[in-house]
Amino acid sequence: MLSAEIIAIGSELLTPEKTDTNSLWLTEKLNEIGIEVKLKTVVGDDEARLEETVRDALKRSDVVITTGGLGPTEDDITRRTAARALNRELIFSEEILNQIRDKFWRMKREMPEINKRQAFIVEGARVLDNPNGSAAGMFIETENADLTLLPGPPRELKPMFENFVLPKLREKAGEICVKRRILRVSGMGESAIDQCIAPVYLQYKNPRTTILFNRSEVEIHLAAEGKTESEADALLEEVATKIQAALGAAVFALNGETMEEVVGKILSESGKTLSVAESCTGGLVAERLTEVPGSSKYFIEGVIAYANDAKIRTLNVAAELIEKYGAVSAEVAKAMAKGMRERAATDFALSVTGIAGPGGGSAEKPVGLVFIGYADETQTKSIKLNLPGDRYLIRWRASQAALDLLRRKLIKKDSNK
Amino acid sequence: MLSAEIIAIGSELLTPEKTDTNSLWLTEKLNEIGIEVKLKTVVGDDEARLEETVRDALKRSDVVITTGGLGPTEDDITRRTAARALNRELIFSEEILNQIRDKFWRMKREMPEINKRQAFIVEGARVLDNPNGSAAGMFIETENADLTLLPGPPRELKPMFENFVLPKLREKAGEICVKRRILRVSGMGESAIDQCIAPVYLQYKNPRTTILFNRSEVEIHLAAEGKTESEADALLEEVATKIQAALGAAVFALNGETMEEVVGKILSESGKTLSVAESCTGGLVAERLTEVPGSSKYFIEGVIAYANDAKIRTLNVAAELIEKYGAVSAEVAKAMAKGMRERAATDFALSVTGIAGPGGGSAEKPVGLVFIGYADETQTKSIKLNLPGDRYLIRWRASQAALDLLRRKLIKKDSNK
Repeated sequence: MLSAEIIAIGSELLTPEKTDTNSLWLTEKLNEIGIEVKLKTVVGDDEARLEETVRDALKRSDVVITTGGLGPTEDDITRRTAARALNRELIFSEEILNQIRDKFWRMKREMPEINKRQAFIVEGARVLDNPNGSAAGMFIETENADLTLLPGPPRELKPMFENFVLPKLREKAGEICVKRRILRVSGMGESAIDQCIAPVYLQYKNPRTTILFNRSEVEIHLAAEGKTESEADALLEEVATKIQAALGAAVFALNGETMEEVVGKILSESGKTLSVAESCTGGLVAERLTEVPGSSKYFIEGVIAYANDAKIRTLNVAAELIEKYGAVSAEVAKAMAKGMRERAATDFALSVTGIAGPGGGSAEKPVGLVFIGYADETQTKSIKLNLPGDRYLIRWRASQAALDLLRRKLIKKDSNK
Repeated sequence: MLSAEIIAIGSELLTPEKTDTNSLWLTEKLNEIGIEVKLKTVVGDDEARLEETVRDALKRSDVVITTGGLGPTEDDITRRTAARALNRELIFSEEILNQIRDKFWRMKREMPEINKRQAFIVEGARVLDNPNGSAAGMFIETENADLTLLPGPPRELKPMFENFVLPKLREKAGEICVKRRILRVSGMGESAIDQCIAPVYLQYKNPRTTILFNRSEVEIHLAAEGKTESEADALLEEVATKIQAALGAAVFALNGETMEEVVGKILSESGKTLSVAESCTGGLVAERLTEVPGSSKYFIEGVIAYANDAKIRTLNVAAELIEKYGAVSAEVAKAMAKGMRERAATDFALSVTGIAGPGGGSAEKPVGLVFIGYADETQTKSIKLNLPGDRYLIRWRASQAALDLLRRKLIKKDSNK
C-alpha cells in the first residue's frame, strides 16, 4: 500500500483562525484509491522549514502533495522552494505565460507584471492546467516519490487533482479499492441513530461505519474495501440498504446528496413547481434551492418578508392575524405559505417564520422557536420547532426542516400513486 | 521571539472526517504571549514517524507541544516515543499510579489493569496533573527546547496548558506581544492590490503583511509585535492607515468585518432601509444581509424573481422590456431595483440578474454575465460585470458586487453631507 504525505503551505494556516481543510478532501480521494496518508504538515511562508519538510517527505513517503504558495506574490514560495528541495532548476515557460495572459484577457483585465512569476516551472515537471485560476500546478516524478504541487483555493485544487493526479496515482496504487458512501439523515439525533443502526453495522468489519455530526446534519459514512470497485460497491449497497430499512424516511440521501438536490430532483422529475416565503431564514431556503444548477425549472419565486408590512402587502397575510397571534405563529406561517402559493401560482409553497436570535426572544416565544408552513392545492399546514444553537444554526436548521417537510410530502405523494 | 511547533498525534486525525482543532486553540494562546507557531504536524500512531518528527522539532523550534497519544491502550505511543526521541528512560511512578487509582475510585470504578501504562513518566519530566482525566501530561526541559506532552481531549488539554505550561512559557518568552488585524478589499485582484501596497508594506518588517485570497475576497493580514499591546496596536494602526490611503474605497473593512456587516452598520447608523430583488443570486444577497443580528432594523423585504413572470407580477417589470432586452440586461436590472424599491417603500433597493451557469449561456450573453441594479430616491442605475468562476463563485461574487455598490453609494453620500 502506498503512503502519502500532505504539506499545506501558508502562514495564514498557522493562525488561530485558519485550518487546513484541503487535506481532508485529498485524504478522502487518496483513501479511495487505497493510498494511506501517513503525515500532514502545515508550514508557513518560511523557505528553510518548507525545504526541509519537502526533502524529508520525499525520503519517507511515496506520494507527496503540497497545497498553496503558488500565487503571484513574493511570499508565494512553493515554486522556488520545491525546486531547491529537488535540486532542480526553475524554468521560465513562454507557453504558460501566454495562457495566464489569456485568462486575464478573457476577464477583460491586463495581466499585472508580477503574475509572470507563475510562469516559472520546476524542471521536468508535468504542468497541471488550472481551469479556475492563474496558478499552474505541477506533477514531478522523482526516483523515490511523486511530488504534486497544487494551489491553495479548493476550487482550483479539486479539478486539477481529479483530472490529472488522481488517475495517475490510481495506476500506481494498483489493486486495492476503497469506496465510500455517505448517507444523510434528517429529523433524528446522533445517539438515536446509533441505537437504531448499531445492530446492523456491528455485524460488519467491512464496510466500516462512522456516524458523524457535520455542520448541522447527521451523516453516516461507510467505507468498504474490495479487490475491485464492484466488490466494494456491493458491500456498500448491502449495508446501506439495511441502514435505510432501519431508519426509514429519515434517510434522505443515499449518496451524499444535499437536501436541496434531493428535493430538486423529485420536483424536476414530477414537473412540479415551488415558491418560498421566508422571514427568519432571510433567503436561505431560496438560496439553497437555487444553488442547484437547473433549479429554474421548478423554483419560480421567493419572497423574503422580513418586516410585518412585507408579509401583509406581498404575501397577503391579514394584519389582524399578525396582531392576534404574532408574526411568529402557526397561523401566520400557514398564511404566508398560502399567500406565496397564490402569488406565484406554484404547485407547492413553503414558508418559515421564527426567532433566530440572539435578540428578540421572550419567555413565551424564545429564540429558536420556528414555524414552517406548507401549502399545496388541497391543504395548508404548519409545524412548530424549538431549534437549539446560535443564529447561524437556527437559520440553517429551519431551512433544512422546511425542505424536509416538502420532501416527506413529495415522497408520500409519490408512493400514493 | 520564540518559535513553537505543534504535533497532533493519532491515526484518527489522518482520516477525511477529523481535523486537529486543538492546535488552533494552542496557537491563539501562544500568540498572545508572543510565541509564533512555525510548523504543525499531524502524525498517526506510527512510532518511527513520530520519533523523527519530535527529534526534528526539538532541533529547530524553542517550544514543542504534542497532543494526544497519552491514553492507556497499546496504540497510545506518545510516552515511549517521546522518551526515545529524547534519549531518556521511562520511569514508573508509584505516586502517579496512586493518583490514577484514586480518580477511578472517586468514580466508583475499579482501575483497569491497562491504565498502569499511564504511570510511566519520561525521566526528568515535570508531571502535569489532569483534573479531567487519567492521562498525566509532562513538561520536559531540554538543552535546546521545551517539550510538552498533552492529552488529546480538549477538556483535559486546556486546563493543563493554562494552569502550568502557559505561565512557564510566558516567563521564558519575556515581554513580547503580538496583535493581528485583517483588512478586506473589494473590486481589486490579489496582484493589483500587491502592486499598490507593496511600496507601503515593504518598508516595514514589523508588522508583517500577507495578502490572502480567501473564498472570493482578498484579505490583507497584518501581524505586529510590540512590548505592550498598545505598542503593537499603534504599529497596526500606522500601516493599516497607509494601506487604506493607497487603496482608497476598495478597502471595506479595517477589522475583519464582512461586507454585510459593513453595509448593515452604515444603514443602521443612518436609519435608512433596504430591499433587494434577486434573480441569479437566488436569495444570497438577502441571506447575507439577514445573517447579521439586528438586520431587521434596516432590511425590509426581498423578492427572488427567478421566473420572468415573477419579475413582471411582483417587481412590476414591463414584459416588453424583458422581451426587448432579455431578462439579463441593464434595463431589466434597473427596472427590478425600481420596482422593488417602490413595493417595499425603502430608501434603497438593489437588484441582481445574470447567468450563473453552468447552463444558460450564449455567445452574446455568456455564463458570468451579471447586471447589478441600484435605486434610491433620486436615481436608478446599473453596472455590468463579467464574473469568472463556477456557479457558486459567480453567485457569491455577484452578491458581493451588489453589496459593494450600495456601500460605495452610502459612503459617498456620507462624505457629501
